[in-house]
Amino acid sequence: MNNTDTICAVSTPAGVGGVAMIRVSGSDAFELVDKIWQGKRLTSVQSHTAHLGYVMDNTDDCDERLDQAVCTVFRTPNSFTGENVVEISVHGSRYVQQRLLEVLVNNGCRMAEPGEFTRRAFVNGRLDLAQAEAVADVISSTTRASHRIAMSQMRGAYSHRIDELRDSLLELCTLLELELDFSEEDVEFASRGRLLELANNLSAELSKLTASFSKGNAVKNGVPVSIIGQTNAGKSTLLNALVGDERAIVSDIHGTTRDFIEDTVNIDGVLFRLIDTAGLRDTDDRIEAIGIERSLRCAEKAMIILWILDCESQNPLDDYSCRAVSEIMKRESECCVLPVLNKTDVASSERIQDIRTQLEEFGNGRLHASVEISAKTGKGVDRLTEQLKSLSGIALVDAEDILVSNVRHYESLKQATASINRTVEALNSGLPGDLIAQDLRETINHLSSITGKITTADILQNIFTRFCIGK
Amino acid sequence: MNNTDTICAVSTPAGVGGVAMIRVSGSDAFELVDKIWQGKRLTSVQSHTAHLGYVMDNTDDCDERLDQAVCTVFRTPNSFTGENVVEISVHGSRYVQQRLLEVLVNNGCRMAEPGEFTRRAFVNGRLDLAQAEAVADVISSTTRASHRIAMSQMRGAYSHRIDELRDSLLELCTLLELELDFSEEDVEFASRGRLLELANNLSAELSKLTASFSKGNAVKNGVPVSIIGQTNAGKSTLLNALVGDERAIVSDIHGTTRDFIEDTVNIDGVLFRLIDTAGLRDTDDRIEAIGIERSLRCAEKAMIILWILDCESQNPLDDYSCRAVSEIMKRESECCVLPVLNKTDVASSERIQDIRTQLEEFGNGRLHASVEISAKTGKGVDRLTEQLKSLSGIALVDAEDILVSNVRHYESLKQATASINRTVEALNSGLPGDLIAQDLRETINHLSSITGKITTADILQNIFTRFCIGK
Repeated sequence: MNNTDTICAVSTPAGVGGVAMIRVSGSDAFELVDKIWQGKRLTSVQSHTAHLGYVMDNTDDCDERLDQAVCTVFRTPNSFTGENVVEISVHGSRYVQQRLLEVLVNNGCRMAEPGEFTRRAFVNGRLDLAQAEAVADVISSTTRASHRIAMSQMRGAYSHRIDELRDSLLELCTLLELELDFSEEDVEFASRGRLLELANNLSAELSKLTASFSKGNAVKNGVPVSIIGQTNAGKSTLLNALVGDERAIVSDIHGTTRDFIEDTVNIDGVLFRLIDTAGLRDTDDRIEAIGIERSLRCAEKAMIILWILDCESQNPLDDYSCRAVSEIMKRESECCVLPVLNKTDVASSERIQDIRTQLEEFGNGRLHASVEISAKTGKGVDRLTEQLKSLSGIALVDAEDILVSNVRHYESLKQATASINRTVEALNSGLPGDLIAQDLRETINHLSSITGKITTADILQNIFTRFCIGK
Repeated sequence: MNNTDTICAVSTPAGVGGVAMIRVSGSDAFELVDKIWQGKRLTSVQSHTAHLGYVMDNTDDCDERLDQAVCTVFRTPNSFTGENVVEISVHGSRYVQQRLLEVLVNNGCRMAEPGEFTRRAFVNGRLDLAQAEAVADVISSTTRASHRIAMSQMRGAYSHRIDELRDSLLELCTLLELELDFSEEDVEFASRGRLLELANNLSAELSKLTASFSKGNAVKNGVPVSIIGQTNAGKSTLLNALVGDERAIVSDIHGTTRDFIEDTVNIDGVLFRLIDTAGLRDTDDRIEAIGIERSLRCAEKAMIILWILDCESQNPLDDYSCRAVSEIMKRESECCVLPVLNKTDVASSERIQDIRTQLEEFGNGRLHASVEISAKTGKGVDRLTEQLKSLSGIALVDAEDILVSNVRHYESLKQATASINRTVEALNSGLPGDLIAQDLRETINHLSSITGKITTADILQNIFTRFCIGK
């Protein structure tokens, strides 16, 4: 990828609208746009000024007005990319957008690759890598919570914390490496006790950041909620009641696993991904085994499991369901099973109390307190959504919280944690300074890769091709 | 509709993208945006300047940064609407776009109705009505030809011509009305001979403009081309060959009539709407009658009819097809029947010559010269597209041509033509000046309605609600 030529792309969403904006960035941006611009010479106007004029179609030996447009000029380095930038606002017709790109290319621009504007912003030091990645997250965020994490990351709070950790490691490492220069004299610039304390603190902090990923990921991609229960327990009715209750975006995502249909529901700014599973039912052993396995597999992805119990069922806590839930509770990963008593509008209070008692016996303190609802009438559904919010823990996300939501950062943090833990071990076993320094260097590299202080062309390629074109 | 409050809407296409632009227009635009703007006070900056800052989310007692944004300021009267305008460019995420609108509304803006920005531009004299309508046409244009008409109309060439005609009528009318003031003295300020000459010229000019509508409409909405022929003559294969051949936009439009599927094909900047009909076939009389009727009904909409003849058919010019084509040729409207000999790759040259001779006998000079193709191999399809272009007459549309492409204008022009023709009659029959003046006034009103010099709230409502929101 060439980083010096002048690139162009439609930066507004694809489609037809009142206005579309074509962005042109590169050292020759003004000269190139001037070739097709009837209006004030952009090469001579001030930065951050907007100008009305016409973009011209000068191809095929014609020279006609393609559209009336407003060109806004941003001079290097005060632009998004850090380069000279012209933002051309035209009428948002398909023809004008497509033709203007053709005309720009004919006059010497190159079509931008996905994410290339942001990549240039990174290359020119306008953003660090974590901030650049946050731009894509800001664009794709659909809820208040996911938007907040992305904004916080884009504004650099996260990068700042990572850089602080990295700097304290660098300091340690420098001291250790200084010792090596004086190795014959057997000095210790870095007190081993102080080193151990610092390494332990860092290890704790890195573990905390790494652990925040499950929350960060849930915020970004939605909290996975699995709905299990007997057939006809009212799982789908509940799904509809939850989805119908929401005030914001609803969409259907057909999961990669064909058996499950996911619905997303935005509850007060937090996205939940509801995974409806096939009903649990007693059949012959082989099918049963597959069924249990399937429910477990599905539940594995879930942070919260809604166990729907039908108050009208003969035996809501049948062996089959209980076995499945037991399997789920045996798992190590954090996951909360919330029993939901459905059809409480038609069940007697004695029946409800009876099921509650059975649940207490079965759960033995490991199940969450049950919620009573009627998915059909909507009774209790608001209490259930409150429970979902509080169980997700996400409702409490603060704008200042630092949550890891990016898989790449998560991987780097895991590796940094592993190497700092090796440092701790090495210090505890009294290993020599050069070995300790090596582990520290490794930790520093992992942290540096997050903000892009150390990076490779592959990593950059991988990150920016996931962007949309025009950003 | 209130024309004084401050309105806001997303002006860029709906969806997710790198950048979205929210437009705010009204006398309080700067003060309102300043309430949620962390950056230079927009009330105090110069017109046509762009400013980097943050839009704030100040609802629900919080005050957090919603997004980094660029605000571009346009001061009245130098803006699209003529009012104070702020264009806020934010990251094109669904959440940011939706939330920013909510925040703006919470701070005193009103959501704009469809077309309301353009309506205000009209009300404030920035555009006349025909130009305002052209804005919508520019936005929806998908081909070079339709874009050219819309651009020419938006730039006012058309309005200018209409106003010239209107002004010459006004002059005549004033002279006639002056006569009425001196009616006792029996003077003729307006020479009847000169009046007749002018009225005749106007009638001719208005007729010409009215007649341009069929071409203008074809440019705007596509040239309707009907494909008829026996079953298995290769109609659908031809459709695919034509559509597959095109270099630009292809889309499927399911017609209002369910029986026909339309495909659009962009041939060198001209849009053709291809209507594939059910194959003609001989069955019992009742069905046959319905079949013929259907083909005729479909062909009625067409400017060009492609009559596909299968060279491998026993009898390509069967009675049934010939009767249908004869019916079509009897019609008054301009419509060209182009015989297309298909499957010429497998037919012998004698067979092809034979069919050609039959066609000449049948057509008797009223059919277009036939084209020989093979829809399957693609042979001759380029010659056919050349023929389509030349028959449509649209390939020759000049940027300077004035073509009527708007149904409302067409209706007004038809009525103006009718009343100017009444004037001509009245002059020829020596009717008194007051009656002639009345007809002239009517013509003037019809022309005035086109550019909006005379208009009603209903007409405006009707025009602008067809716009997209944000324009």
